[in-house]
Amino acid sequence: MDGAPPPASPAGLSVYVAVSQLLGLTLLATTGAWLGRYRGGVAWHSPLQFNAHPLCMVLGMVFLQGDALLVYRVFRHEAKRSTRALHALLHGLALLIALLGIIAVFESHRAKGISDMYSLHSWCGMATFVLYLLQWFLGCGFFLFPRASISLRGWYKPQHIFFGITLFILSITSCLLGITEMLLFKISDSYSHFVPEGILANTLGVLLVAFGLVVGYVLTREEWKRPPLAEELALSMDFKTLTEGESPGGGSQ
Amino acid sequence: MDGAPPPASPAGLSVYVAVSQLLGLTLLATTGAWLGRYRGGVAWHSPLQFNAHPLCMVLGMVFLQGDALLVYRVFRHEAKRSTRALHALLHGLALLIALLGIIAVFESHRAKGISDMYSLHSWCGMATFVLYLLQWFLGCGFFLFPRASISLRGWYKPQHIFFGITLFILSITSCLLGITEMLLFKISDSYSHFVPEGILANTLGVLLVAFGLVVGYVLTREEWKRPPLAEELALSMDFKTLTEGESPGGGSQ
Repeated sequence: MDGAPPPASPAGLSVYVAVSQLLGLTLLATTGAWLGRYRGGVAWHSPLQFNAHPLCMVLGMVFLQGDALLVYRVFRHEAKRSTRALHALLHGLALLIALLGIIAVFESHRAKGISDMYSLHSWCGMATFVLYLLQWFLGCGFFLFPRASISLRGWYKPQHIFFGITLFILSITSCLLGITEMLLFKISDSYSHFVPEGILANTLGVLLVAFGLVVGYVLTREEWKRPPLAEELALSMDFKTLTEGESPGGGSQ
Repeated sequence: MDGAPPPASPAGLSVYVAVSQLLGLTLLATTGAWLGRYRGGVAWHSPLQFNAHPLCMVLGMVFLQGDALLVYRVFRHEAKRSTRALHALLHGLALLIALLGIIAVFESHRAKGISDMYSLHSWCGMATFVLYLLQWFLGCGFFLFPRASISLRGWYKPQHIFFGITLFILSITSCLLGITEMLLFKISDSYSHFVPEGILANTLGVLLVAFGLVVGYVLTREEWKRPPLAEELALSMDFKTLTEGESPGGGSQ
């Protein structure tokens, strides 16, 4: 506002983030194309209700979850408080959409008399969703409200980051398992003849892996971690002086 | 040798490593139990040749690959040269065993007239194997023979670590896809009735995820990274003085 140029992002980061968003949109378009072109489309109270499941899971558990992880890299020069709120909000939205996707599959199974929770996809997917919900509550409790002490937050932060990335990977893995399951249920006779539906759905799987790879690379690259702002550094130094110990964690959360 | 006590490992590391090895052995036992109890066992030139595929992939691409990643944490106080050789050796062994597993599935498909490479499992699995082989050659070329310059090694090391962990995750994901595919081919009629074979194979999937989680946690925990030995530090300081630049990478490779 006072004429100072805005702080620049590291070279390359914007390109990788742009690629991740392009991949994310392509993911959604490919899922839509698969369901629309080969599976009759998506509708709630109808025999097509099942199709809401893959769409919601890719949108919530992959695209939005991935973007929620990226906010600390994208908004690296904004105040941490607002970035943190956006992080929690995007994860919350992802959880809501994923919940819709889970309701869709249970209601559709009940309508068709299909058993629930017997496959490896359902075991991995449900475990991922429940742990993701738990991680969200823990994250809110530690970092937003009621908020833990600085030392407790410093202890929890690395665990939160590790399990955050793990849950993102598990979400993508669960999607790949779901794609395989759906193809073997729907086109088991023609899948081995390289029919277009099989190739499209396999390509969706490859795109999911590519999205995970790009997001994972952005998150783990050391030089791209969020630098602490001047006021955060001052606070951290105050804390250091007070406790005569180490400063709490890095600045990337 | 001169009476000095051996340097201690950080608290907790040994416990996590022990758990990872227990999980790894349980993985192999569970795979063996599945194939032996429900799939007629394993034999090379016979209709049972296919069964060598899951066994080799779990042993090579998961257990041995995971252990190859762990050597820098387990042998943290040994000379880097020997640890590096062991790392390359274990990955090489993993590649050989995985190659056997791939030959098994192609030969078995040919004998039974089944198409190759049409499923998402085959796409992910083959891509993972080819990239793992490439990563091994690059790793050997950069770090063992002919060995790149210090600055080139410093540039390549973070990429090698990122893609190493990524390929390990992709290997586990490919195994989960393979389990799902095999169950839907072999027991599609009874899988939804929670038959013991389905539960055993799902449990194998959960164990694979657990192994990945424990190995991933050990690898990424900051305090457990390999500290540079005194002589490595001296070398790094010499290099710093020579180049008047930054020291090459950390000490965890």
